[in-house]
Amino acid sequence: MRRRQDGRAVGTKIRVRYADTDQMGVVYYANYLVWFEVGRNAFFRNMGESYRRLEEAGLLLPVVEAVCRYLHPARYEDVVTVTTWLERLTVARLTFQYEISRGDTLLATGHTVHAFLGKEGRPVNVKKRFPELWAKLLPCVRMPEPARCGR
Amino acid sequence: MRRRQDGRAVGTKIRVRYADTDQMGVVYYANYLVWFEVGRNAFFRNMGESYRRLEEAGLLLPVVEAVCRYLHPARYEDVVTVTTWLERLTVARLTFQYEISRGDTLLATGHTVHAFLGKEGRPVNVKKRFPELWAKLLPCVRMPEPARCGR
Amino acid sequence: MRRRQDGRAVGTKIRVRYADTDQMGVVYYANYLVWFEVGRNAFFRNMGESYRRLEEAGLLLPVVEAVCRYLHPARYEDVVTVTTWLERLTVARLTFQYEISRGDTLLATGHTVHAFLGKEGRPVNVKKRFPELWAKLLPCVRMPEPARCGR
Amino acid sequence: MRRRQDGRAVGTKIRVRYADTDQMGVVYYANYLVWFEVGRNAFFRNMGESYRRLEEAGLLLPVVEAVCRYLHPARYEDVVTVTTWLERLTVARLTFQYEISRGDTLLATGHTVHAFLGKEGRPVNVKKRFPELWAKLLPCVRMPEPARCGR
Repeated sequence: MRRRQDGRAVGTKIRVRYADTDQMGVVYYANYLVWFEVGRNAFFRNMGESYRRLEEAGLLLPVVEAVCRYLHPARYEDVVTVTTWLERLTVARLTFQYEISRGDTLLATGHTVHAFLGKEGRPVNVKKRFPELWAKLLPCVRMPEPARCGR
Repeated sequence: MRRRQDGRAVGTKIRVRYADTDQMGVVYYANYLVWFEVGRNAFFRNMGESYRRLEEAGLLLPVVEAVCRYLHPARYEDVVTVTTWLERLTVARLTFQYEISRGDTLLATGHTVHAFLGKEGRPVNVKKRFPELWAKLLPCVRMPEPARCGR
Repeated sequence: MRRRQDGRAVGTKIRVRYADTDQMGVVYYANYLVWFEVGRNAFFRNMGESYRRLEEAGLLLPVVEAVCRYLHPARYEDVVTVTTWLERLTVARLTFQYEISRGDTLLATGHTVHAFLGKEGRPVNVKKRFPELWAKLLPCVRMPEPARCGR
Repeated sequence: MRRRQDGRAVGTKIRVRYADTDQMGVVYYANYLVWFEVGRNAFFRNMGESYRRLEEAGLLLPVVEAVCRYLHPARYEDVVTVTTWLERLTVARLTFQYEISRGDTLLATGHTVHAFLGKEGRPVNVKKRFPELWAKLLPCVRMPEPARCGR
C-alpha cells in the first residue's frame, strides 16, 4: 500500500495500553478512532494551534463521518505511529486522513470529516469568522505541489 | 432519510451513560462503534446464536472496515435504539448495517465489514466450516423478497 | 460474604460488551466504575429523579473517592446486576455503595463518595439549596429500621 | 499534601484526550484507573521488565483492589504526570501507589493491589516461581532506607 502522506503530514506516537485490548488479544476497533483524535490534536499543535483554544474561541469541529480500515491488529505495548494530514478543506468542512503504523507495517487507514460549528451549534464560514485559522490551515492541505505547513 | 431496515432488522435499546459523553456535552464519536457492537450481539442472539459461542467454537469475526455517519448528537440519559441488519454475506465476509435513533430522529448510520477467521488467524470458508451458522445467516441477509430470520 | 443491601437498594442489569473485555479475557478493571455510574443513574431514576435534571438545575456531584474490590471476573456476554444504595448522606456529601453480581456470585463491591457542588464549582449545602432533593434522599439512606425509598 | 514518592518512584507523562472528558468538562473518573495502568507499565519498563513479557511467561497480575481519591479535575489537553511506586510486596500480592499531578498541583492519588496468578488462574508464589522478577521487585519497594531500583 502506497503511503500518501508528505511533508504536511504530522506523526505522533502512542503506546498501546492494556485498556485498549479486548479478549481477542488485539486493540478493540473503536479505539482506533480515539487514536485518530490524538493524531488531530498533534496536527493542530504542530500548526501552532490547539483544539482547546479553538473551542474556547467558540469554534467546534464535530465529526460528521468517520471511516477506518483495519489491515493488521495492534497489540498491547506496541508503539504505533498515527500520521495525520489535512486532505480537504472548504469554508464549511475539513477532512483529516490517518495512517496507523507499527514500524513499516501499516495497521489501519481512515479519515474523519468535521463540520465547522459555532458555540450555538450553527454552521459557520470558517474563512470569514476565523480568518487566521483559515490562513494557517490552507497551506496544510495535501496537494501535488510542495508547500510549507506548520512551524 | 429513508429507513432501509425490514423484518430482518433487530433493534436493541441503550441508555446513554455519563461515561459516553465528552466535554461538547454529547456522546463521543468512537462510542457509536461500541453501540454497533451491542447491535451485532443483539442480532446474533435474535438468531439463536451468540458471538461468545462462535468464538468458543473457533470462529472469529474481526472488523476489517467500520464507517459511521453522524447526523444528530446523542446526549446523556437518552435512550437510543440500535437497529442492525445483515446487508451482505459471502463465504469470507459479512457486512452489518446499523441505524441509531432516538424516537423518530435518526442520529447515525453506519456499517461494519467482518472477515471470517479461524482461531489460528487464517481466513475460513464459513459455509464449509460452519454450515449450521451459514444456514442461519443466509435467510437474514436483507433482500427484496420476504424471508424469515431468527426465532 | 453477607449482602448488606435491603429494600432501599436498587438493582439494574448490564450485559457485558466485547468492548469491556481486555486480553486477559475478562472485564477491564476501570469499567467497573462505569457500571457503578450506571447503578447511580438507576438509583436516581428509581427515586423519581434524574442526574441529568439535577445538573440542569445547577447541582453537580463530582466523585471525590472511588473504591472497588474485585472478587471474581466478569466475562463477555455475562449479564451482571449492579445493586446500589445510599450508604451515607450529609449536607455536603453522599456515599453510594455497590455490589456487582452474576447470579449468586458476588463479583465486586465498592463505593463512591460525591461532593455537592454548584455550577460555579463551589460546595453547596444540599439541604438548603435543594430541599426537595434532600427530602427524597434522606429516607433512602441505609439504616437499621425500615423506611420507604423511591416510588 | 506531602508527596511520598522517592527515588524508587517512576514518572510518566500523559496528555489528556478529548475522549477522556465528560460533559462536566473534566476527565471522567474511571479514566484515572487507566492512567494508573499506564503508570504501572512505565514502572515495569523502568525496571527492565515488561508486563507483556510477564504474561507471556505465564504470570498474570489481576487487580483485586483499586482506590482513587480525586482532589482537582484534569482537563482536556492538560499534560499530567503519573508517578508510580511499589508500596508493598509479598510472595502473593503487590501494591502500587500512584500520584497524578499537573505541574505542582496534585490531582489524584490512589493505589491498586494485584494478586500473582499463573496462567491457569491459580495463585502462585512469585518468589519461588519467578525468582528473577522477585529479585528485581524487592529493591523497588518503598522503604525508609535508600535503595537502588531499576536501571
